[in-house]
Amino acid sequence: MKLIITEDYTEMSRVAAQHLLGYMSQPHQVNLAITAGNTPKGMYEHVTEAVKGKPWYQHCYFYNFDEIPFRHKPGDGVTVTNLRKLFFTPAGIDEANIRKLTLDNFREHDARIAAEGGLDLVLMGLGADGHFCGNLPGTTRFHELTTEVPIEGAMVDIVVHGELGGDYSLVPDSYVTMGPKSIMAAKNLILIVSGEGKAQALKQVLEGPVSETVPASVLQLHPSLTVIADKAAASALA
Amino acid sequence: MKLIITEDYTEMSRVAAQHLLGYMSQPHQVNLAITAGNTPKGMYEHVTEAVKGKPWYQHCYFYNFDEIPFRHKPGDGVTVTNLRKLFFTPAGIDEANIRKLTLDNFREHDARIAAEGGLDLVLMGLGADGHFCGNLPGTTRFHELTTEVPIEGAMVDIVVHGELGGDYSLVPDSYVTMGPKSIMAAKNLILIVSGEGKAQALKQVLEGPVSETVPASVLQLHPSLTVIADKAAASALA
Amino acid sequence: MKLIITEDYTEMSRVAAQHLLGYMSQPHQVNLAITAGNTPKGMYEHVTEAVKGKPWYQHCYFYNFDEIPFRHKPGDGVTVTNLRKLFFTPAGIDEANIRKLTLDNFREHDARIAAEGGLDLVLMGLGADGHFCGNLPGTTRFHELTTEVPIEGAMVDIVVHGELGGDYSLVPDSYVTMGPKSIMAAKNLILIVSGEGKAQALKQVLEGPVSETVPASVLQLHPSLTVIADKAAASALA
Amino acid sequence: MKLIITEDYTEMSRVAAQHLLGYMSQPHQVNLAITAGNTPKGMYEHVTEAVKGKPWYQHCYFYNFDEIPFRHKPGDGVTVTNLRKLFFTPAGIDEANIRKLTLDNFREHDARIAAEGGLDLVLMGLGADGHFCGNLPGTTRFHELTTEVPIEGAMVDIVVHGELGGDYSLVPDSYVTMGPKSIMAAKNLILIVSGEGKAQALKQVLEGPVSETVPASVLQLHPSLTVIADKAAASALA
Repeated sequence: MKLIITEDYTEMSRVAAQHLLGYMSQPHQVNLAITAGNTPKGMYEHVTEAVKGKPWYQHCYFYNFDEIPFRHKPGDGVTVTNLRKLFFTPAGIDEANIRKLTLDNFREHDARIAAEGGLDLVLMGLGADGHFCGNLPGTTRFHELTTEVPIEGAMVDIVVHGELGGDYSLVPDSYVTMGPKSIMAAKNLILIVSGEGKAQALKQVLEGPVSETVPASVLQLHPSLTVIADKAAASALA
Repeated sequence: MKLIITEDYTEMSRVAAQHLLGYMSQPHQVNLAITAGNTPKGMYEHVTEAVKGKPWYQHCYFYNFDEIPFRHKPGDGVTVTNLRKLFFTPAGIDEANIRKLTLDNFREHDARIAAEGGLDLVLMGLGADGHFCGNLPGTTRFHELTTEVPIEGAMVDIVVHGELGGDYSLVPDSYVTMGPKSIMAAKNLILIVSGEGKAQALKQVLEGPVSETVPASVLQLHPSLTVIADKAAASALA
Repeated sequence: MKLIITEDYTEMSRVAAQHLLGYMSQPHQVNLAITAGNTPKGMYEHVTEAVKGKPWYQHCYFYNFDEIPFRHKPGDGVTVTNLRKLFFTPAGIDEANIRKLTLDNFREHDARIAAEGGLDLVLMGLGADGHFCGNLPGTTRFHELTTEVPIEGAMVDIVVHGELGGDYSLVPDSYVTMGPKSIMAAKNLILIVSGEGKAQALKQVLEGPVSETVPASVLQLHPSLTVIADKAAASALA
Repeated sequence: MKLIITEDYTEMSRVAAQHLLGYMSQPHQVNLAITAGNTPKGMYEHVTEAVKGKPWYQHCYFYNFDEIPFRHKPGDGVTVTNLRKLFFTPAGIDEANIRKLTLDNFREHDARIAAEGGLDLVLMGLGADGHFCGNLPGTTRFHELTTEVPIEGAMVDIVVHGELGGDYSLVPDSYVTMGPKSIMAAKNLILIVSGEGKAQALKQVLEGPVSETVPASVLQLHPSLTVIADKAAASALA
């Protein structure tokens, strides 16, 4: 495990972009599962500037690792919509290079990734509750592959306020996510973490214990994990 | 994760030997942590035959991943003594290519492995109780690196009868083992499993759940795990 | 470059088989271009015994690196016919795992290999004239990719007596071969060499100079070349 | 082989920096042989900005691939002096991370690199005469490892005007360079090329023929070569 502690969010974004561009510059097909959300915004600005209009990134394929469909709206769900806004559209990523995980194809997702050579990298954020991808406490177990998670009970509010802008009419019955076992099967992992609110979760990712109540705590067991955290996020570390 | 089911112990031994020799034949320095015990006996016979007197394996370095010192006997403990008998001595492995983990150096073991380029492979057996290396239920946590484990309570009998031929005078106060986090940091893992007595443990390694009460269940989360099991050991799989 | 010198052909065959099985045992798709001819006969006997009826090699794909079509006979040419006899048929290799290079598809061969992830290994023999694959002195240049070579002049006799059992009625107008640049693009190369007749050619492969008059002399420039030669073949080395 | 054609020198510098930082960001020890000279100036400005004062690049080791000692001046020669000015000093590279090739140690250079795990990357420029590193036409052969080259005849003027600012009093009797075989042994190569004056040399690197009269023409045979050239340098390509 490699830990990089940056001064602040701005530096975290630049360093994360360098890492992602490093993978994207390899001279062979590269398969990347990348995160939506707020944490990577700065990173995608740098990456977009480097990638836009440049033909030498055409061997890079992008996967979403979770998806929340909009109720009654066919087509892209929350994650891919967000990734388009943050990165695919401004960077001009070719539609053929976007590999979508959806509620319709999730059962084949792991086999498809394996057939396409495996993921070279998963670049993720970390939740204050210790979640990564759609693996929230109480939803998936460590041994699970890509799976469907029902949205019920407390999860309804989490999804509506966290992902749907408070609009209850959009909340679907379930979402899909690559499970812990799917993510751990990638060749390399990068976790980007910003802000004091993530400090306790990050502490458990780096120092243990490994527990399903803090799902991301499992990531410390990957043989190639790089954590890029700003000082605030790293403030609880030993 | 890749699962190979062989007819029987004899075939398991041959296939495991092929895998180990495959790693040993790579054209660069190769670092291998390998298991002592009963399960690998047949494998080491094949490997010894291939390696003995052959100069083209001199770039291979061998690590033990645990060690039980003999009480009042300085020098090699149970594991290295066993590895010498099974493999190092008959195969003529040069002393300079043996990297010993001991009670004296275990605190530096993980850093030393990292400085030497990391482990290319850990080849392990599986205990009927779900242990791997010296990670028995109740001894280590998933987030632990190489560590010292006190031998007390029920562990005394386990060690005396499992490793010391029933001789209570030899039992030391503690042993050392690479922890789950150390083992998961290797680039590749191979688990060899034989016999019906291991079937329930193997089921949990391959199908979950991941739990510290069955330590080896964590191995399914490694991105490059190969399991070589005979039919009897695989008999409980779904 | 790694050089292994074996006692004799028998040992060369066993060691070459170990190397090939090592690649075939990797836990991901493996693409292998392998040689026909006399030198690998012993090797294929070992590999066939290990592979026959074993489902755990189904992720291995086999490419021929050259092909001489039979005149007036559609279907497999000399190389694939020979590979079937030596290995594919006795080992029970699935037709879907055989990737044929032919006179019809050679223009797409390099692009196809790249799209399929590249070759993990090319395992070749060496000609007494310094040729490798179909790259004979005077036929291809070092910078050439997979190409068609006309059979004319002295080449007619070479092909008829070397590959067609002396039958002039079978000789076609041309053959195809992966060029030096195609072969050098593979991740790993293994060269197997047996007999005193190859000693001068091997000397130039290992000690230079690099010259198109001894095509295989270029192979010493590959970052991952393993040479497995018996003592007779190695007898001219410094 | 991967070819990237940038608008101009400015973009070439930025893209080359991204590639170099990509290698430097890998989560394990990284060994890099890097070029001095004019072409990389812009690249080093970007890399210096990213690296200066950042502890997370301490696992990167830097090698010079050639050296011209100053006559009558012990200590650093032309290349290391230049690398210090361009990169090591402004970026604050620790002296312990600089691996010097000198006239005194060149005979052990290849063995030392192998013992340290091999070079992950050689990043080079291209001469208008087709040279790379210190491999000028007429000086080294393709099969040579790191070697000493006498400075005599026409080479005196080339060295004095190209590297010594016209000062004949500084010209030594010989220089050292990693030979073609040493460079080809690296895991990855990057060639940066700028300006119309390099267009003919680049054409031969990318399109052949491979000839010792244009030493860099051999680089096209490496399985992992990335060429980053500006439009002017690429203007002669087919």
